[in-house]
Amino acid sequence: MTTLKSDDFFTKADALIAAGCFIDKNGWVPATSGNFSARLQDGNIAITVSGRHKGQLVRDDIMLIDPHGRSLDGKKPSAETLLHTALYHRYPDIKAILHPHSMNATLAARLFKTEVILEDYELLKALAGIDTHASRISIPIFPNDQNIPRLAAVVDDYLDSHGDIHAYIIAGHGFYTWGASVTDALRHLEALEFLFDCEIRLHGVKTS
Amino acid sequence: MTTLKSDDFFTKADALIAAGCFIDKNGWVPATSGNFSARLQDGNIAITVSGRHKGQLVRDDIMLIDPHGRSLDGKKPSAETLLHTALYHRYPDIKAILHPHSMNATLAARLFKTEVILEDYELLKALAGIDTHASRISIPIFPNDQNIPRLAAVVDDYLDSHGDIHAYIIAGHGFYTWGASVTDALRHLEALEFLFDCEIRLHGVKTS
Amino acid sequence: MTTLKSDDFFTKADALIAAGCFIDKNGWVPATSGNFSARLQDGNIAITVSGRHKGQLVRDDIMLIDPHGRSLDGKKPSAETLLHTALYHRYPDIKAILHPHSMNATLAARLFKTEVILEDYELLKALAGIDTHASRISIPIFPNDQNIPRLAAVVDDYLDSHGDIHAYIIAGHGFYTWGASVTDALRHLEALEFLFDCEIRLHGVKTS
Amino acid sequence: MTTLKSDDFFTKADALIAAGCFIDKNGWVPATSGNFSARLQDGNIAITVSGRHKGQLVRDDIMLIDPHGRSLDGKKPSAETLLHTALYHRYPDIKAILHPHSMNATLAARLFKTEVILEDYELLKALAGIDTHASRISIPIFPNDQNIPRLAAVVDDYLDSHGDIHAYIIAGHGFYTWGASVTDALRHLEALEFLFDCEIRLHGVKTS
Repeated sequence: MTTLKSDDFFTKADALIAAGCFIDKNGWVPATSGNFSARLQDGNIAITVSGRHKGQLVRDDIMLIDPHGRSLDGKKPSAETLLHTALYHRYPDIKAILHPHSMNATLAARLFKTEVILEDYELLKALAGIDTHASRISIPIFPNDQNIPRLAAVVDDYLDSHGDIHAYIIAGHGFYTWGASVTDALRHLEALEFLFDCEIRLHGVKTS
Repeated sequence: MTTLKSDDFFTKADALIAAGCFIDKNGWVPATSGNFSARLQDGNIAITVSGRHKGQLVRDDIMLIDPHGRSLDGKKPSAETLLHTALYHRYPDIKAILHPHSMNATLAARLFKTEVILEDYELLKALAGIDTHASRISIPIFPNDQNIPRLAAVVDDYLDSHGDIHAYIIAGHGFYTWGASVTDALRHLEALEFLFDCEIRLHGVKTS
Repeated sequence: MTTLKSDDFFTKADALIAAGCFIDKNGWVPATSGNFSARLQDGNIAITVSGRHKGQLVRDDIMLIDPHGRSLDGKKPSAETLLHTALYHRYPDIKAILHPHSMNATLAARLFKTEVILEDYELLKALAGIDTHASRISIPIFPNDQNIPRLAAVVDDYLDSHGDIHAYIIAGHGFYTWGASVTDALRHLEALEFLFDCEIRLHGVKTS
Repeated sequence: MTTLKSDDFFTKADALIAAGCFIDKNGWVPATSGNFSARLQDGNIAITVSGRHKGQLVRDDIMLIDPHGRSLDGKKPSAETLLHTALYHRYPDIKAILHPHSMNATLAARLFKTEVILEDYELLKALAGIDTHASRISIPIFPNDQNIPRLAAVVDDYLDSHGDIHAYIIAGHGFYTWGASVTDALRHLEALEFLFDCEIRLHGVKTS
C-alpha cells in the first residue's frame, strides 16, 4: 500500500532531512538514534522511520502516519511514534517535534536525576513565550522505558499536573522538544543543548 | 520606506555574513543569538536584524541605521542596537562590532563574576595595541539587563572611569568586541574565545 | 605480483574509504593510526595498508589478503592484520572490522583498567543483539603488546572463557569492533564512542 | 626586489597551505597565530609571513628566505624566523617545521611547567625513530620570550646538553615540531596534539 504524497509532505520531509544534517553535524544523533516529525496541513504526520542514521536521511526515510500513529504508506512506524502523536494531540499549535539523543541530555539525566532547572540565561529567550533572562524553567527527566505506551502515560500525567513545558528528557535516551515549525523546534533544540551543556559544565564547580 | 543601499553597505554586509559563518562554525552563536555590525564610510551602520540564525545570514538580514540607531530602511532595529551605537560614538576609529553568545563567555561570567584577567599569553598580541605576552588586561563582566539603555549606561560609566578595554562580557549573554575592520574584530573575537577557554579550563585546577 | 581485483573488492574498499572519512572527521584516527577491513564474498579480506592517514585513503591504500593474512597483491600486510584474521576466523558472520584509535578508548583504558561496563543506555540497542537499555555489557581492556601473535592469543583466550563481546580495547592503542557489514561495524563504533565518552565524563563525578 | 620562484617553492608553499587548512580545522592556530616553513632543495626556505590567518593562506602569504633568515623576495620575515633557521641548521635531515599555537600546548605548559612526559602510548610510534609504545620521551617547555635570539639560544643550549627531541613547547605560545617532509611534520603535530590532550585530561584524575 502506497499513498500518493502531497507537496506539503515533501516540503516537511525536506525540512526534517535538513534538520537532521544540522543536528548530526553537532553530534546529537549518534549511530541511528533520534527521530523527527512534522505535522502536515491535513493533520497527518511526516515522521522518520527507525534504523536510519539521522544525519544521512533521504526522502524514503520519512514515512506518513495519521494522527493516531497508523501507517498511511505501508511503512512500519517505530514504537516511539506514540510519543509524537501524544504531543500533537495535546498541543494543537505545534507542527514539529525533534528528538535528539545527545551527550548533554544523557549526562544531564545522570547528574540531575529528576529535572534540569534553567534560569538567568539570555538564551532562554530562544524558547517560545519567554522574553527575559530573569526566567526559571524546569525540564523534567523521566525514567527510560521500552514500554512506550507506559512512558507516554507518564509524560501525559506529568503534563496534566504540571502544565506546559518546553521539552522533556528521557534518562539515557535523549530529549524531546517541539515548536510551531521545524525551524522553531530546531531553535529550541539548539538553545537547550547549549543550556544543558552550561549546567553540566558548571555542575560541581565552585563558582563563588 | 526603503533607501537605496550603497556598494559600501553590501561590502560590509557580506563581510558580516562571512564572519557569521565562521563564528557559527565554532558554535559561538547558538539558536538566533548574537548580533554584528559594521560602520560605513558615511557614518551610518550596517547591523544584523534580530531573530535570524547568525550562521545562515543573507543580505536581507542586514539593516541600515543612522549613528543614533534609527532605521533607514524601514526594518525594525533590535533593542541591543544601542550597545553598538554607543561604542561607535565613543570610539571613532572602530568600524566593526561583533557580539557572540558563546559557551566560554557564559561560563566565564559564572566562574569569574566581575572580570576575566588575561596575562602571560602570546595570543594577547592578537589584540590591538598589545605587543608582548607580558601584558595583563581585564575584560569586565556586567550583569545582564533587559533594559538596554540602563545596561548601556553601566558600560559607559565603566569606560569613563576605567579607560579603554578590548571587550566586555554580559553575564549569561555573551560578549562584545570590536576593531578597525570586520577582520580585526573577528581576530579579537577568536583570540578572546581561546583565552577565555584557557582560563575556564584552568579554573580550579592545581597548576603547581 | 598483482592479482586482478573483483568488483566486490572495490565495493568493500570504497566502503572502508568512506568509513575512514567519517571516523577521521570525528578525530578517532589521529596521525596514521587505526586500520579497517572487510571480508569479501570469496572469503578473502580487503584491509588497509599501514602508514596511511585513515581519513585520506584511496583505493591503492587497501590491500587484498587471504583468510590466513597472506598478501594476495604483493603489498606488505601490517603486523596487526592477525587481529583481523583471528576475528574473522572465530566469527563466520562478521564481514567488517574497524579499529579506531580514539581519545575515548585511550582514556577509558587509563581510567577503567580492565573493562568498561556499559548499562542503562538506550544507545546499547545500536549494538547487534541488544533490544533494551536495561542491559549490561562489558568491553574488556587488554594490555598493549608489540608482539601481535601474543596479543591475539590473549584475545582468543578471553573469548574462549568469556563468550561473545561487541568490542575490545587495547590499552593506549584504541579499540576493535566489528559487524555484519561496514555499516553495522560503523554503527557499533559510533555508539561505543558515545558510550565510552559518557562513562569517562561521569568518572569521578558525584551523581547522586 | 622580487625573485623568480621555483616549482619547488610553489610545491612546498602549497603543502604548507594545505597543512594550514588541516591545522586550522582542528582549532590549533587561532587568530593569526602559528607559523610554518619548508626547506627547498637548494637550501633556501619557504616560510609563512606574519599576520595572516594560517587557515586561510594563499601563495602570496609564503615568503622565501635564505638559510640565515634573510629575505629573498622583499617580504619582511617575522621575528620567529630565527627559531626555524636554527632548527634547519642543526638538523640537516629535516625539511619542514610546523608551529601550532594550540589549547593543548598552552594548557600543558601551565600544568606541567618544565616538560611533558609521554610514555606507554601506541601513538608514540607516529614519531620518527620510535617503534614501540614502551618508550618514554620528554617534550621540554621553555619560558616565552619576545627576544627571539635569546629564546633560540635557550633552545640551542638545551639541545646541546640533552640531545635530540621531537618537539618543544614555548609556554603560552604553542609548540614547534618538525620532520623529513611537511607530511611527516604534520603527522608528528597531530600525534603530539592527541598525546598532550590525553595527558591534560588525565592530569589530576585518580586513575587507580
